[in-house]
Amino acid sequence: MLIDTVSRTGGHLASNLGTVELTVALYKCFNPPEDTIVWDVGHQAYAHKLLTGRAAQFDTLRTEGGISGFVRPDESVYDSFYEGHAGVSVSQAAGVAAANSIKGNKNFAVAVIGDGSFGNGMVYEALNHAGASKQRLIVILNENEMSISQNVGSMAKYLATVRAKPKYYRLKAGTEKLLNKIPIVGRRFSMHVFKLKSVLKNMLYSSSFFEYLGFKYIGPIDGHNIPLMCEAMQSARLAACPVLLHVNTIKGKGYDFAENAPEKFHGISKFDVNTGEPITSGESFSSQFGAALCAFASKDKRICALTAAMSLGTGLDQFKKEFPNRFFDVGIAEEHAVTFASGLAAAGMLPVFAVYSTFLQRCMDQLVHDGALQRRRMVIAVDRVGFVGEDGETHQGLYDVPMLRGIPHLTIFAPATYEELNWALYRAFYKEATLSVIRYPRGCAALQLTDAQPAPWLEDGPDGAQLCLVSYGRVRASVTEAAARLRADGFTVKVLSLLQIRPLPADAVRAAASCGAVLFFEEGAQSGGVGEAFGAQLLENGAACRYQITAVDDQFVAHASVPALLHRYRLDADGVKSAAREVLSRE
Amino acid sequence: MLIDTVSRTGGHLASNLGTVELTVALYKCFNPPEDTIVWDVGHQAYAHKLLTGRAAQFDTLRTEGGISGFVRPDESVYDSFYEGHAGVSVSQAAGVAAANSIKGNKNFAVAVIGDGSFGNGMVYEALNHAGASKQRLIVILNENEMSISQNVGSMAKYLATVRAKPKYYRLKAGTEKLLNKIPIVGRRFSMHVFKLKSVLKNMLYSSSFFEYLGFKYIGPIDGHNIPLMCEAMQSARLAACPVLLHVNTIKGKGYDFAENAPEKFHGISKFDVNTGEPITSGESFSSQFGAALCAFASKDKRICALTAAMSLGTGLDQFKKEFPNRFFDVGIAEEHAVTFASGLAAAGMLPVFAVYSTFLQRCMDQLVHDGALQRRRMVIAVDRVGFVGEDGETHQGLYDVPMLRGIPHLTIFAPATYEELNWALYRAFYKEATLSVIRYPRGCAALQLTDAQPAPWLEDGPDGAQLCLVSYGRVRASVTEAAARLRADGFTVKVLSLLQIRPLPADAVRAAASCGAVLFFEEGAQSGGVGEAFGAQLLENGAACRYQITAVDDQFVAHASVPALLHRYRLDADGVKSAAREVLSRE
Repeated sequence: MLIDTVSRTGGHLASNLGTVELTVALYKCFNPPEDTIVWDVGHQAYAHKLLTGRAAQFDTLRTEGGISGFVRPDESVYDSFYEGHAGVSVSQAAGVAAANSIKGNKNFAVAVIGDGSFGNGMVYEALNHAGASKQRLIVILNENEMSISQNVGSMAKYLATVRAKPKYYRLKAGTEKLLNKIPIVGRRFSMHVFKLKSVLKNMLYSSSFFEYLGFKYIGPIDGHNIPLMCEAMQSARLAACPVLLHVNTIKGKGYDFAENAPEKFHGISKFDVNTGEPITSGESFSSQFGAALCAFASKDKRICALTAAMSLGTGLDQFKKEFPNRFFDVGIAEEHAVTFASGLAAAGMLPVFAVYSTFLQRCMDQLVHDGALQRRRMVIAVDRVGFVGEDGETHQGLYDVPMLRGIPHLTIFAPATYEELNWALYRAFYKEATLSVIRYPRGCAALQLTDAQPAPWLEDGPDGAQLCLVSYGRVRASVTEAAARLRADGFTVKVLSLLQIRPLPADAVRAAASCGAVLFFEEGAQSGGVGEAFGAQLLENGAACRYQITAVDDQFVAHASVPALLHRYRLDADGVKSAAREVLSRE
Repeated sequence: MLIDTVSRTGGHLASNLGTVELTVALYKCFNPPEDTIVWDVGHQAYAHKLLTGRAAQFDTLRTEGGISGFVRPDESVYDSFYEGHAGVSVSQAAGVAAANSIKGNKNFAVAVIGDGSFGNGMVYEALNHAGASKQRLIVILNENEMSISQNVGSMAKYLATVRAKPKYYRLKAGTEKLLNKIPIVGRRFSMHVFKLKSVLKNMLYSSSFFEYLGFKYIGPIDGHNIPLMCEAMQSARLAACPVLLHVNTIKGKGYDFAENAPEKFHGISKFDVNTGEPITSGESFSSQFGAALCAFASKDKRICALTAAMSLGTGLDQFKKEFPNRFFDVGIAEEHAVTFASGLAAAGMLPVFAVYSTFLQRCMDQLVHDGALQRRRMVIAVDRVGFVGEDGETHQGLYDVPMLRGIPHLTIFAPATYEELNWALYRAFYKEATLSVIRYPRGCAALQLTDAQPAPWLEDGPDGAQLCLVSYGRVRASVTEAAARLRADGFTVKVLSLLQIRPLPADAVRAAASCGAVLFFEEGAQSGGVGEAFGAQLLENGAACRYQITAVDDQFVAHASVPALLHRYRLDADGVKSAAREVLSRE
């Protein structure tokens, strides 16, 4: 069912195939919703959805109004939190466990978290805090050998069975008590005691990372063996402190194509079940960014590229091959990525951090404190801006512009063509004084190559026009098309395109002020967006025009296709045109 | 010199007294600026300033135009980064080390970081990433027993001298080679080997946290013994991989009052050198917040309070005493704090996270993903908003409003009196649907109790007035005074006070629209601020008034007193009045 559905809808396949047995074991050993199960990221919870009443609707996965690809409490009482970002589950579960403790109940909170998330600092903050408690918290580390460091992966497997048995704690506690009574130096040990101590040392050493943080450690055990996992979960329930249960799973388990290429099948578009081949198109902003960056880097040895575990998604795979010593994948660690880039810049390099808009939210402080404040040249390439489509509300790229706009000295570019992307990169590398952000959506460019030479803003149409349509980024395609239709209807229209949205080009505001009505179209949050700045500056300049912002109002945006969302928020050509006609009719 | 100066200027005393010898040792063993020394937070770098050419000006510490209380590259080539926030130094130094490696030089990058910062996840992200490299990176963990967990603190001190000797590595490497040749099970060991193995086990166990992350570990050693530290630093220079050097220091070393009460003397206002008593005033927004929260919590058992290592600064010390099981200090871990609060809320509690504006920047993603998106009631109490005065540009509370404004469903309150603070807390706990932010400045309320009942917005003055002065927060005091003077000069003035700045009360915009000129005063970044939203909505409503925003333009704001900064940015009563007169004269 997972394979068939995802082949038709796209989604996360390999991660979900890997957690089927783990999900079954969890429902055998715990009693949700009294016990809280938290799915980190939520991209491994399809089996959970099938087992909690959503099998019949599962073919609507990731479609508008259908089942979400992530976890959502409004879908089911068994979905404890809205999930989509990595590394939050331990904090969430720890909060629930603390509340359970305050309320005096005996419920468990269980976080299920993949090894990739363990590169994120927040997990450490949570383990460090929760480990000092005595709460009924169980963290299940789902290691699928995709990204965690070797130390955990290389633990002696033969200890797994011993550890998973419920009597392990008694054995260990007894042994430790015995050992504590024996002075370490100055007497001869029996072979038996020595052997025990060696085994303990190995266990302590291999698991000490988690024990340092105050967790009992159980594992690693086979995450596809339900009886073994149930034994381990029963052990975990008996512990008097937080427990880390380490399971090994195979990404893509049960579908050969996915097992053999788990990264490809992690998040995938529609594909052919019989061949495993995706049904996708080629060029995109991401790939063009990667190619452009390689071209710059081949001429300028200072250019370095950084990613937070997204080298494929951000188009950096080619850079990684061509310039391995200037490529840095820091793991799911956006905060570190920005500040590490700041260190590179301080030592004379030109760093570019490529990151999705939604994950850029993770490093706002670093962009202020270790980016703009340092007054050194750095570039942030922000991918997946605006509507992200099927991934839904946890992943929307609608908030980076408001969050970034307050940061002093920052320049933000919003290219709509590949040529403009190239121009923005050049500006950021060689013309801007400090931190620059270049933001573009998923997929291919909305506009074809234009005749106009890229510049901070472009205009098309006469001063004093009845209408001035202002926009930036992907929406420029809608505005261009709507302007053509409005002109065909006999209206005079000026089109203003902002390639640089911060600082706002003052000339662009003045150019708009001569028109009868100014309409601003923005694929982003209205509150804090560029449209507000444009409107305020119009008024400060004494403009007497009518003004209207069309943007995303005060709500989260659930999963639906990008064209459907552009239509819903009146940001497609039809929407732009009808907004314009409405304003004109109010004349 | 440190004690005398700080007694007159205020500043960080205990932390700086603790690092005098460490600073001397660093300058003996490293060669900056070729070697890069990074001071985490930068609140322990006064000795560094004295030794790098700033002794003569040191009496200007933290005064306008004088020496900064933190580290700033524009003060000295020996200041490698602008510093002020915790936990960034390892990432910065790792970036420099990576650049050194790319460039092929042999320079070292050294991060000096306190134990408190080790609760921050970013440090772990950096250690995890850098530990896998072979770069010339040395992290000096300055443990002053203020906050790090016991495991590090309880390491056997007797090993310190052995470890600090340069031959330690050779000894350890040789021993490990020997041990690896001996099968662990099935033969009898000599006492000598067994003893060595026990010692090694202890060392491995105690230091394994850092070794897990790929660092060689040296320490702990006496951070007040210069020759010992130099030996250890020479050892560190010889390692073929990143090194963690662990030193123990005493906060406040050399000044009895500070040694005995290091927390009080961490960051302190002016004090009497002979008695150690601070010269300060009493009540503040922080203390009023703490008292109000205790009052609510005594009636409502769901209310929990959280802090990220700032229980004193945020006024939560009383709550901590009265409600210990509902109080959570998570360490310097703002991301975890918000998401942990989200877990508490999911389990039915009413969490309040009190945090400084500048550190709120650390958890923007969590406020979106684990706050507003979850649609559960949570409160963020934001202290130190607006100008922070002497701490300077790394600590300004000028960016929280732009960063927060884009977050859907969020309500932001900006009380200017203690009564309004109380009202906002009540609203946030019992009236708002989801996430609320309540923001207020350091120190005492700008306005006395007003007659007006708190409401989302207040107005004073007639419709159709010549002038409408709009503001929120501390600046309302300036506006109120200026309005009185302008009225005395014969002008008609409407004063609009926003207690709720998001969503913007639509009625307030309509009330302003009737006036001849609307002036918005905002103690925060202009770009992305409330003034832009207000102006855009005026224009969208068809207002024909003149409009002007007075706020902080596109720059970082260095250290100076709050009154001086309010004056510079025309946000004191004189500034408000002169801005008003200018607009009127343009009539």
